[in-house]
Amino acid sequence: MNTHTTLLVTLRGIVGDAHVLTEGDLTAYEQDWRKRERGKALAVVRPSTTAEVAAVVKACAATGVSIVPQGGNTGMVVGSIPDASGQQVVLSLQRLAQIRQLDAANLTVTVESGCILQTLQEACEKEGFLFPLSLAAEGSCTIGGNLSTNAGGTQVVRYGNTRELCLGLEVVTAQGEIWNGLTGLRKDNTGYDLRHLFIGAEGTLGIITAATLRIYPLPATQLTAFAAVPSLEAAVALLGLAHKHLNAGLTGFEVMGAFALGLVRKHFPQQNVPFQTGPDVPPYCVVLENSDHESESHARGQFERLLEAALEQGCVLDAVVAENLAQARALWHIRESIPLAQAQEGLNIKHDISIAVSRIPAFVQETDALLEQHFRGARLVNYGHLGDGNLHYNVQAPVGTDAEAFLRDQEGPINALVYDVVDRYNGSISAEHGIGSLKRDKLEHHKSPVALNAMRAIKLALDPHNLLNPGRVLKL
Amino acid sequence: MNTHTTLLVTLRGIVGDAHVLTEGDLTAYEQDWRKRERGKALAVVRPSTTAEVAAVVKACAATGVSIVPQGGNTGMVVGSIPDASGQQVVLSLQRLAQIRQLDAANLTVTVESGCILQTLQEACEKEGFLFPLSLAAEGSCTIGGNLSTNAGGTQVVRYGNTRELCLGLEVVTAQGEIWNGLTGLRKDNTGYDLRHLFIGAEGTLGIITAATLRIYPLPATQLTAFAAVPSLEAAVALLGLAHKHLNAGLTGFEVMGAFALGLVRKHFPQQNVPFQTGPDVPPYCVVLENSDHESESHARGQFERLLEAALEQGCVLDAVVAENLAQARALWHIRESIPLAQAQEGLNIKHDISIAVSRIPAFVQETDALLEQHFRGARLVNYGHLGDGNLHYNVQAPVGTDAEAFLRDQEGPINALVYDVVDRYNGSISAEHGIGSLKRDKLEHHKSPVALNAMRAIKLALDPHNLLNPGRVLKL
Repeated sequence: MNTHTTLLVTLRGIVGDAHVLTEGDLTAYEQDWRKRERGKALAVVRPSTTAEVAAVVKACAATGVSIVPQGGNTGMVVGSIPDASGQQVVLSLQRLAQIRQLDAANLTVTVESGCILQTLQEACEKEGFLFPLSLAAEGSCTIGGNLSTNAGGTQVVRYGNTRELCLGLEVVTAQGEIWNGLTGLRKDNTGYDLRHLFIGAEGTLGIITAATLRIYPLPATQLTAFAAVPSLEAAVALLGLAHKHLNAGLTGFEVMGAFALGLVRKHFPQQNVPFQTGPDVPPYCVVLENSDHESESHARGQFERLLEAALEQGCVLDAVVAENLAQARALWHIRESIPLAQAQEGLNIKHDISIAVSRIPAFVQETDALLEQHFRGARLVNYGHLGDGNLHYNVQAPVGTDAEAFLRDQEGPINALVYDVVDRYNGSISAEHGIGSLKRDKLEHHKSPVALNAMRAIKLALDPHNLLNPGRVLKL
Repeated sequence: MNTHTTLLVTLRGIVGDAHVLTEGDLTAYEQDWRKRERGKALAVVRPSTTAEVAAVVKACAATGVSIVPQGGNTGMVVGSIPDASGQQVVLSLQRLAQIRQLDAANLTVTVESGCILQTLQEACEKEGFLFPLSLAAEGSCTIGGNLSTNAGGTQVVRYGNTRELCLGLEVVTAQGEIWNGLTGLRKDNTGYDLRHLFIGAEGTLGIITAATLRIYPLPATQLTAFAAVPSLEAAVALLGLAHKHLNAGLTGFEVMGAFALGLVRKHFPQQNVPFQTGPDVPPYCVVLENSDHESESHARGQFERLLEAALEQGCVLDAVVAENLAQARALWHIRESIPLAQAQEGLNIKHDISIAVSRIPAFVQETDALLEQHFRGARLVNYGHLGDGNLHYNVQAPVGTDAEAFLRDQEGPINALVYDVVDRYNGSISAEHGIGSLKRDKLEHHKSPVALNAMRAIKLALDPHNLLNPGRVLKL
């Protein structure tokens, strides 16, 4: 038997024949979420315990076969599919999906990395607690993937990214050893913070098998408002007022440009998008969410005082506050429909960038002007998590042009233009989606060489044979 | 000239003659805060810019002289003084102390590492913002030291440790290069999180020269309550109720054992400690703080509802809410006086431990019993940040015995007993004070070998010649 055949036999011995997939339709494991690329796996291996993960890693390490860890495979940057060689093992964590313990008094939940985000949200809610991570793919993404990409989403303004929600990890190292760091401690100063090194490393430093995460008492009520603002500067001023008036009650603050909202109206005419008719369509709208631990009437009072102050200061032109849950959902649904409306409109060039909140208006003004100058007619679909300084600053082909040709010819130059302005504004070229293989070469250009050298040294120190998700994040 | 003399000439050329100290009284730099140890420096070097720090590191690296970075030198674990060899350079960051920028719209402040914590608190307050880190040494500790030890303090229950308050760092590496990671971004997924690796590394991986930190709108009011509870279990139940009722308004939750409060009464009789007279002195009391962004009356209403619920459930026996700022300060002063009262009572054995909040009552019951069994008459001064699961579980010599002899003979065995129970409860032997040289050997015994190996690999990767604070945190 050759080495690969021997390895497959060993892997079948560890996880059982049924969980080493080499035949049939493996598209779900081999193709990325956005269908940009497809690889070929030597095998897809599906362990169901941490010990099995460790044994799989040891077996692969012994034969020099590299491993691509995979959760729900919903990533945006081609970071969790195998390359085309047919020589890599996809290690799917989907069967390692138990919720091990919810500790109410400690306000933590310990969960295995294959657990679907929505499953965890629902399990916590059933016990009266909120697990606040919330994002579009929540029905299929896994906690392990959320941790490995440090997922963001719509409640970061209050609760932080996945990183900030994690108190402890269990990780299988590149040597196939198990680190049990599932302490559930809020304070622990015993050496280097390995937890934060594995979080956001996209499976290149170790394989996260479980985590202890923060949970919160469920709020008594959540209110949603939809406000028209006269400018991005006004949106930033509104954010400052919202922080002052709502404090930790501010759990969502999303901005949407008029063109993005226009696409929603065009492609989903059944949706009732406020403030989009008449002679003076506002350039931007904002969705705000207020989570309140007292009562709905208290939340309404807070919202009213905020919006009064904002109207008085001129940073809000008009606003509606949802009267009930259905209306709140409808308002959020407008925001969530933007990516779909964009896709309906045709292929587009995506940017997931962040800038200090205070500098976003100047950044957008400058970048809009440069794009208009160099790519006449290109249409800007600007929206995102303004509360965190995170914009999805996307570019749609000019009306009536061939979107495919536009993407083929202009994606490179437009990326370069946008990222160069991001650099000048000391921003990030990947706010919440990560690097994967899609942005790896761009990272070389945009990240500080001092940081890149430190990252390479760390990768080589922890995974000297480059077995874990090689070629992702970093060029070695 | 020998190598050291040449180095001193070079260092004088970088920072100026006046800022390379080799003579006179260097006690402030060479002796640790708790006066447990004294070292001898080759020189104390006081750069005033990041470029000077980088040049100093390069000069030391070129001659193989190791560096002990130092802020306010208020650490508790002998981590910032030189060893006795007279061969190490103390690099004091005290002159690198500018507040570079307060960005109100981004809710961040960028500050150099030598800035005194209290100076930063006051500068933010003047602009209407809160920098929430708060701890006993705030009048003399520096931000760089806070970051390097990931300092905790009394508001962690709401705002997290120093780590959670930091968005970006500027660091001088062991090679004397400058990494500018001062982005002020709330979302940035471009590779490994170097920030969290340098935070809490106690100067062994790089020298933090500046940081961009989170600030918050100042609360409208802060109320303090002092509650008697029938047990530690009840204190934990009260904490759960406080999270539900006050939510993010809960900014402080401290527990104090009856013996600890008795020491305050004994040594500071002018202080009026509630609930300590009469036949039924409660075993524990709790200080709660409610920070409110609306109004004092709103805060009082919230506190009243919380305490009513707690009385009804039996987890509070009695409580007082401060009527004004002076009363609130007096209540907090009781809590803050415990370490001083302890010192007045005599030398004692200190533990800075953390356990999952839910397991603290069982931990204390078990450890109290074991100590009583093996060290008859030893007195337990138990108090701390219960909201974070962090206890200062200290042991005072039996009445009438020689405290010095007790410490000399029993510190080792008592440490071992307490830390072994901490291990069994999956806790931490250093919740907020760090490792330094004081706990380095203990860490070898109590930390997972997998984690220790990863830490060593990282140290060698980033500081291969072991120039930065050698011998601290890790045995190489």
